[in-house]
Amino acid sequence: MKTRILFAFIMMAFISLEANAQQALWGAPGIVSPEVKEDRTVTFRFQAPEAKEVKISGDWMPAQGWTPGSEVMTKDDKGVWSYTTNALESDLYSYSFLVDGTKTTDPNNVYLIRDVATVVNVFIVGGGKADLYQVNKVPHGSVTRRWYDSPGNDKTRRITIYTPAGYETSREKYPVLYLLHGMGGDEEAWIALGRTAQILDNLIAQGKAKPMIVVMTNGNVAQEAAPGESSLGMYKPSFQLPNTMDGKFEETFGDVIQFVEGNYRVIAEKKGRAIAGLSMGGYHSLHISRFYPNTFDYVGLFSAAIIPDAKMTSKVYADFDETLKKQMQNGYKLYWIGIGKTDFLFKFNEEYRAKLDGMGMKYTYVETEGGHTWTNWRVYLSQYVPLLFK
Amino acid sequence: MKTRILFAFIMMAFISLEANAQQALWGAPGIVSPEVKEDRTVTFRFQAPEAKEVKISGDWMPAQGWTPGSEVMTKDDKGVWSYTTNALESDLYSYSFLVDGTKTTDPNNVYLIRDVATVVNVFIVGGGKADLYQVNKVPHGSVTRRWYDSPGNDKTRRITIYTPAGYETSREKYPVLYLLHGMGGDEEAWIALGRTAQILDNLIAQGKAKPMIVVMTNGNVAQEAAPGESSLGMYKPSFQLPNTMDGKFEETFGDVIQFVEGNYRVIAEKKGRAIAGLSMGGYHSLHISRFYPNTFDYVGLFSAAIIPDAKMTSKVYADFDETLKKQMQNGYKLYWIGIGKTDFLFKFNEEYRAKLDGMGMKYTYVETEGGHTWTNWRVYLSQYVPLLFK
Repeated sequence: MKTRILFAFIMMAFISLEANAQQALWGAPGIVSPEVKEDRTVTFRFQAPEAKEVKISGDWMPAQGWTPGSEVMTKDDKGVWSYTTNALESDLYSYSFLVDGTKTTDPNNVYLIRDVATVVNVFIVGGGKADLYQVNKVPHGSVTRRWYDSPGNDKTRRITIYTPAGYETSREKYPVLYLLHGMGGDEEAWIALGRTAQILDNLIAQGKAKPMIVVMTNGNVAQEAAPGESSLGMYKPSFQLPNTMDGKFEETFGDVIQFVEGNYRVIAEKKGRAIAGLSMGGYHSLHISRFYPNTFDYVGLFSAAIIPDAKMTSKVYADFDETLKKQMQNGYKLYWIGIGKTDFLFKFNEEYRAKLDGMGMKYTYVETEGGHTWTNWRVYLSQYVPLLFK
Repeated sequence: MKTRILFAFIMMAFISLEANAQQALWGAPGIVSPEVKEDRTVTFRFQAPEAKEVKISGDWMPAQGWTPGSEVMTKDDKGVWSYTTNALESDLYSYSFLVDGTKTTDPNNVYLIRDVATVVNVFIVGGGKADLYQVNKVPHGSVTRRWYDSPGNDKTRRITIYTPAGYETSREKYPVLYLLHGMGGDEEAWIALGRTAQILDNLIAQGKAKPMIVVMTNGNVAQEAAPGESSLGMYKPSFQLPNTMDGKFEETFGDVIQFVEGNYRVIAEKKGRAIAGLSMGGYHSLHISRFYPNTFDYVGLFSAAIIPDAKMTSKVYADFDETLKKQMQNGYKLYWIGIGKTDFLFKFNEEYRAKLDGMGMKYTYVETEGGHTWTNWRVYLSQYVPLLFK
């Protein structure tokens, strides 16, 4: 009996330690925010009794030019501001609060994702396409952060690798998708913002995609790793880095392939290799698949930053038309182009498609609503992956 | 030439996209916060022109009872509040801002760590013990999140595994440290707050620790995975969960060992196994090493929540003295106990040591300043790991 009382005492000490620390720091242990409801409306709550005005800015709200949309929240008599959306389409959304003009995160939502130098709260509305972005009761793959040698960059570099459920205990060889991020991103972008592990787990479990390894590189060859993950320490990330679109990444991509094929049980043949990327990563995918013109059977350009021959100084961009023709003649199974109608890169993609049409190079084209957004890139990934390795 | 102009145009579009989005949402793209200086003082900056008072609350400030310490910041004529610390001891620190009483994160610092239901900004002051917590130019291990079968819990469960640099290409067998979190934690706690990968990378590179695998479990058997990583979705985490200290985790720990020894190249013998944990994880380590009394040569109790025989209903807590004696008689190389002088669990550890003294069971005892904090647990890990597998 004595030990039970002792146990109860300790539990109380623990709980009060937590509750009080929470109380003091957060002020609102009882608040639930966001509350995603059955009818797909979402309620946000934020305690700020002293604030004159609290707004919420969410990526589902229409932007005014460069200014993200925002809505004023309503304050109750306890100083809690709240706001409820209309029913939202199924997706992964991000938002921030603006307290008298100063942006803040939601202290009641621990789910945050960094996009370049910005950290925002996220939530998922299910019941549609975002069911693929959720962790469901299906077999789960493994996600590994490891380091590989890149002699071409004279660096050891960090890389994120998804291996599908069953890989570790199987004796089969697996195909590989190389999945590249956009400007400002790194080896954390696709796994965090792109929900790659969840999308792959779910598509594989549904029988819609072949089990495959997904390799998420860091396309900024000036970096060893994502901000905070290298010996540069915890610095403020910047959007543009040197040597991102000058051919160096494409030229040294062989280091990545060599590492993957030397360290994983993979189908080390063209038919077992796919490459895709968003924005800058689409540009990289275009040029890597051209520069190594008989290496990939599957190419995906998601809202690609297509700027042909931009820097003639790199050998990667030399002989553009000739190497593209070579790639075409060598053959491939899929050349997939996806872009949103309002994307600022739309017309460059249009020009590129005209070029492909002119030379008779076949491609699959998907045009969606929307612009240069992760909302679209998750959809493109969900559409592209089922087409691979069939 | 034309393509260069095109390229420049695209780059400008990209940069303005980012700069404007940043500008609009964050209001302060030029601000650096925190700025950790050579002399180990740290300056924080926060733009909030409309706020009446902005405070900073940091874990280096003395608390007032349960209330964390805080200091008022100073506003300049541009509406930027700032505060500079005295020289800080080398450590990993966390902090928040309090804007007219409402807690917020630092929008200029993208480095955040979740502790239970609280997300705080972090930074590192080097030049001392925290040099072990930084990513340095040394060979890096891999960190994998994967899932294992736990038949004892009728679940597939998520687990975090650190394998040291060289593991993948070696043919050697490695020893394993099972590292357990405290109440409110999960399989993300040690890798995020504990800086396990950095501490291990650095100690191994310095020749102070043997290369070893570190297995970070989720000690809450009611959970499949950390909040946001299971099919429960993105819910608000809670501190106390059912079945955390009722014997179920200890009883089913064999599932973890079986998974690790079946899937990794390890020394599957007592001499190749260590276990350690903080707080509730210390309690788990005590009971697991007793319940499997001839399994671990190394046991570490960090600020352990030692509550002997608390729940007699589980077979795990039966025959406490007898199984402990058995463990002693079977022999072991290290039984390490560390606790801070002001820890609220201090006297329970004192009583436990008296018990061990009484039965003649040898242990190594380290008493430090401070209390029940991650500051201490990182230190204990840094001290414990070099003693293993020698």
